[in-house]
Amino acid sequence: MTRFTLGQLAEALDAKLDGDPARVVTGVASLDAASADDISFLTDPRYEAAARASRAGAFVVPAGTRGLPAPVLECGSPQRAVIELLTLFHPPSPLPAGVHPTAVVAPSAAIDPTAAVGPLSVVEAGARIGARVAVHALAYVGRGVEVGDDSELHPHVVLREGVALGQRVVVHAGAVLGADGFGFRPEGGRHRKVPQVGRVVIEDDVEIGANTTIDRATLGATVIRRGTKIDNLVQVAHNVEIGEDAIVAAQTGIAGSSKIGRGVILAGQVGVADHVTVGDGAMLGAQTGVAQDVEPGAKLAGTWGRPLLQARRIWIAQAELPEMVTRMKKLERRIAELEARLGGEAR
Amino acid sequence: MTRFTLGQLAEALDAKLDGDPARVVTGVASLDAASADDISFLTDPRYEAAARASRAGAFVVPAGTRGLPAPVLECGSPQRAVIELLTLFHPPSPLPAGVHPTAVVAPSAAIDPTAAVGPLSVVEAGARIGARVAVHALAYVGRGVEVGDDSELHPHVVLREGVALGQRVVVHAGAVLGADGFGFRPEGGRHRKVPQVGRVVIEDDVEIGANTTIDRATLGATVIRRGTKIDNLVQVAHNVEIGEDAIVAAQTGIAGSSKIGRGVILAGQVGVADHVTVGDGAMLGAQTGVAQDVEPGAKLAGTWGRPLLQARRIWIAQAELPEMVTRMKKLERRIAELEARLGGEAR
Amino acid sequence: MTRFTLGQLAEALDAKLDGDPARVVTGVASLDAASADDISFLTDPRYEAAARASRAGAFVVPAGTRGLPAPVLECGSPQRAVIELLTLFHPPSPLPAGVHPTAVVAPSAAIDPTAAVGPLSVVEAGARIGARVAVHALAYVGRGVEVGDDSELHPHVVLREGVALGQRVVVHAGAVLGADGFGFRPEGGRHRKVPQVGRVVIEDDVEIGANTTIDRATLGATVIRRGTKIDNLVQVAHNVEIGEDAIVAAQTGIAGSSKIGRGVILAGQVGVADHVTVGDGAMLGAQTGVAQDVEPGAKLAGTWGRPLLQARRIWIAQAELPEMVTRMKKLERRIAELEARLGGEAR
Repeated sequence: MTRFTLGQLAEALDAKLDGDPARVVTGVASLDAASADDISFLTDPRYEAAARASRAGAFVVPAGTRGLPAPVLECGSPQRAVIELLTLFHPPSPLPAGVHPTAVVAPSAAIDPTAAVGPLSVVEAGARIGARVAVHALAYVGRGVEVGDDSELHPHVVLREGVALGQRVVVHAGAVLGADGFGFRPEGGRHRKVPQVGRVVIEDDVEIGANTTIDRATLGATVIRRGTKIDNLVQVAHNVEIGEDAIVAAQTGIAGSSKIGRGVILAGQVGVADHVTVGDGAMLGAQTGVAQDVEPGAKLAGTWGRPLLQARRIWIAQAELPEMVTRMKKLERRIAELEARLGGEAR
Repeated sequence: MTRFTLGQLAEALDAKLDGDPARVVTGVASLDAASADDISFLTDPRYEAAARASRAGAFVVPAGTRGLPAPVLECGSPQRAVIELLTLFHPPSPLPAGVHPTAVVAPSAAIDPTAAVGPLSVVEAGARIGARVAVHALAYVGRGVEVGDDSELHPHVVLREGVALGQRVVVHAGAVLGADGFGFRPEGGRHRKVPQVGRVVIEDDVEIGANTTIDRATLGATVIRRGTKIDNLVQVAHNVEIGEDAIVAAQTGIAGSSKIGRGVILAGQVGVADHVTVGDGAMLGAQTGVAQDVEPGAKLAGTWGRPLLQARRIWIAQAELPEMVTRMKKLERRIAELEARLGGEAR
Repeated sequence: MTRFTLGQLAEALDAKLDGDPARVVTGVASLDAASADDISFLTDPRYEAAARASRAGAFVVPAGTRGLPAPVLECGSPQRAVIELLTLFHPPSPLPAGVHPTAVVAPSAAIDPTAAVGPLSVVEAGARIGARVAVHALAYVGRGVEVGDDSELHPHVVLREGVALGQRVVVHAGAVLGADGFGFRPEGGRHRKVPQVGRVVIEDDVEIGANTTIDRATLGATVIRRGTKIDNLVQVAHNVEIGEDAIVAAQTGIAGSSKIGRGVILAGQVGVADHVTVGDGAMLGAQTGVAQDVEPGAKLAGTWGRPLLQARRIWIAQAELPEMVTRMKKLERRIAELEARLGGEAR
C-alpha cells in the first residue's frame, strides 16, 4: 500500500501544511468518499460545505482556506496539486521491457530494448518501436509503422501499415488508425473503390480514445497535430487535419479533407462535413453540425451551426411558435375587419 | 437437428394445444419465412392476415385464436412463449470448460474450473474468473479484474485493470471497459492529463453492446447498476452512474459524472452532457440532447431536450415559419396604412 | 520503388500523351504535394491554377487541357484514370497464402489453399474460407461462418457464428458482425433477453468500415445487399435490410427491422428509427433523423427529417424568430388601439 506522511506530501506538492507532518495517508478520494486514511481536495469554493462534512484525514486546499476538520495543505494551484497527488498515489506500472514470447514480431521490425511488447501482439515487417514504448496485449502494429518514444498502445489497438506516431502518444483500446478512407466513385450505377494509399501521422503528446477510428488519406496524410486530445468513438475521415492542442469529445465525426484549427473544441457528437475549415480557437457545442467554414474563435451550436447565443434565443422563442401560428391568423382577421369597416379607400 | 412434437412443446410452454400432439416441428420462423416444418407465432393481432397466409406447421397464439391453417398452441403470454421457444430450439452451446492451451493466463489469476477461457485470450495477474464464465477467443482481462459467475465476454472484449463485473453480465465483442476517462487540465495553453485512477463496476444482469466504451472513473467508480441493458457503440464517460433496469440504445453518449436514473430509457444517438441528472423513469427520444437535469418520468425530445409533445407541436408549426415571415411583414404594412388613415392621434 | 515511363502510363490508361514518352515518374501526388518525380492530376477545372503552379513531372488531365508546365496524359475520364494510376503505383500486396503457424484453426474449418490466414487469428469449427481470402492478424471467424472468394478481413474483425459473406467483401479493422440484436421484453419491471438466433448475410462487393457493428437477426437475417458501402462506426441493428449500392456514411445508426432501399445515401450521423422503410434512391443529409417511411428519391434533412429545401428555408426563417416574438406583441397592441379608437362595433 502506498503511504505518505503529510510532511512528505507538503514537500512534494510545494504546499504549506497546517497540521501534523507525521500524520499518514494511504489514498486519495473525493470529499464524500474519503475515509480518515485518505487525503481529499477542495478545488472549487462551491464544495466548502462538503469539505467541512468530509471524513478525510487531510485536504489539499487553496491558500487561505480555514475551518476544515483535518489538516490542510495549502497550494497555489490545488488543481495541479491533485494531478500530482494522483500520480504519487497511483504511479504508472510500466510493462516489463522486452518482447513477450507469445508476441509475433517480424524479424525486420526494430524494437528498442527498453520497449515492452505484450502477449499475443503482432508487429509486422519494418515497424519501428521507440524507447520505453508499451505495446499491450493483442495490439496490432502494421508494416512500416513508426511508434515514437514513450508512446503507449493499449490492448487491441490497430495501427495499419505506414501509420506514424510521435512521442508520448497514447492510443486507447480498440482504436483503429489507418483503415481505408471512405472513397468511391460512381461508375455505371455502382461504386468503384478509390485506392486509399496515403498515411496517418500523429504528432507528439496526442491521446486517442477507445474505439476511435482515424482513416488513412487517399494520398498524402491524415494529420493530428501535437497535443490534441481525442475522446472515444470519434471518426476522423481521410485527409483531415486537426491542429495543435485541440479537444475532440466523444462520438464526434469529421468528414473528409476538413481542417480543424489550433485549440478548437469540438464537444460531443459534433459533426463536421467534408472540406470544411474550422478556424483556430472555435468552439462547437454538443451535437452541432457544420457544413460551412467556421470563423476563428466562433462559438456555434445546433444543426448547420449558428452562433451559440442566437441558437439559444431561437430555442427560447420556439416555445412560443405554435401559439404564434394561431395569433397570427387572429391578427390577420382583425386587420381585415378594420379594413372592411374603413371602406373602399384601403388598398 | 432439433425436433419437438407439438405435445412436447405444449407441455414445455404450458400451452393448450389445438391439433395433433404427435406432429413434429424442427425450427422457429417468422410468419412469412416459416415452412411446414417450422412453428411460427402470432403475438400481435395486426398480423392475423399474415398468420392465415403462413405456411407454418404450427403457431403459438394468444388464448382464443381461431381460424389459422395449422395447429395452434394457445398461451397466456405468447411473447414469453416465443422467448422459451427460441431457447428450446437454439440452446446456448457453452464453450468447453478449461483454459485453451493458446490462452496466456498469469499464474496469479484465479480461474474457476468450470469457466472456459478461449484461444488466444489474455488473463492478467490477479484476475478472478467465476464459475461457468465464458471468456471467448482474443478477449483481454486485465490485472485484478473480477468477472462474476455465468458472465460472458465475447471475442475481442477489453476489460482493463481493476474492472469488476457481477454475475450473468454479457459483454459483446469489441466493447472496451476501463479505458481512461477523458480528463485534462489546461496549463499554459496545453492540456495536461489528469490521471484516471478509478474503476468500472458493472452489477449483475447487465448487457453491454458491441464496440461500446465505458471509461474508468477519475477517482471512485463508473457504475452500471443491475439489469441495465446497453446497446452497441455507446459512450459512457468517467464517473457516470446508470441506475437499475435502464435501457441505453445504440450510439448514445453520456458525459462525465452524469447520473441516469432507474428504468430510464435513452433512445438511439441521445446525448447527455456532463454533471446532468436524469430522473428515474425518464424517456429521451432518439437524438435528444440534454444539458440540464431531467425530471423523473419526463419524456423529452430534440436538442436541449424539450417535452416530447411540445417538441412535436413546434416541429409542426415550423412548417409555417418561412411563410409567417412574409405574412408578418404584410401585417405590419397594413397596420401602418390603417394608422396613417386614422391620422395624428395614433401613438 | 515503382517506376513508369509516361509512355507506359499512356498505354495503361488509354490516354493521349503530350510530352516525352521516355520520361519516368515514381509516384502519384496531389497538385500541391507533387515533386518533379510524381505524376499528378487535374480532375476539376477549379484547380487549373493549382495545376499551373504545381511542380509535378506530369499530369493526368481531361482531353483538350493545355498550358500546364509538364507533359500531360489526356484521358476521357481523368477520375477513372486516377483510380487506375493509384492502383498501378500502389498494387495490393496480398498476404502469402497459407495458415500462419500461430493461427488457431479448428480441424473442421475448410480453408482454400490460396487463402491467407494471418498470425494469431482464430477460425472456428465448420467455417469456410474461400479462394484468395485474406484473414488478417488477430481476426476472429466464428463457427460455421462463410467467407466468399477474394474477401478481406482486416485485423481484429469479429465475425460471430453463422455470419455469411459473399465475394470481394472488405471488412475493416475492429468491425463486429453478428453480435446479438438488442432485444428485450419487459417482465415484472425487468428486461428479459429475447434470444437472437438469426444470422447476418453480406452480399458480394460490400465494404464495411472500421469498428462498425452489424447485429444478427432475432430470427431470419440482417442483410446487406450487393455493392453497398458502409463507413466507420455505423450501427446496423437486427433484421435490418440495406438494398444494393447504398452508401452509409460514418456514425449512422439504423434501428431494428428497418429497410433501406437500393442506392440510398445516408450521410454521416443519420438516425433511422425501427421499422422504417427508406425508399430507393432517397438521400438523408447529415444528422437527419427519420421515424417514418421515406418516399423513394426524397431528399431529407433535420430531426424528424423534412424535405431538404423546406428544412433550409425554415432554418433561414428561424433567424428572424426571436425578433418576431416582439414584433407580434407590438402588432397586437397596435391593432387593439385601432379597434379601441374605432369604437364599440368591433367584435
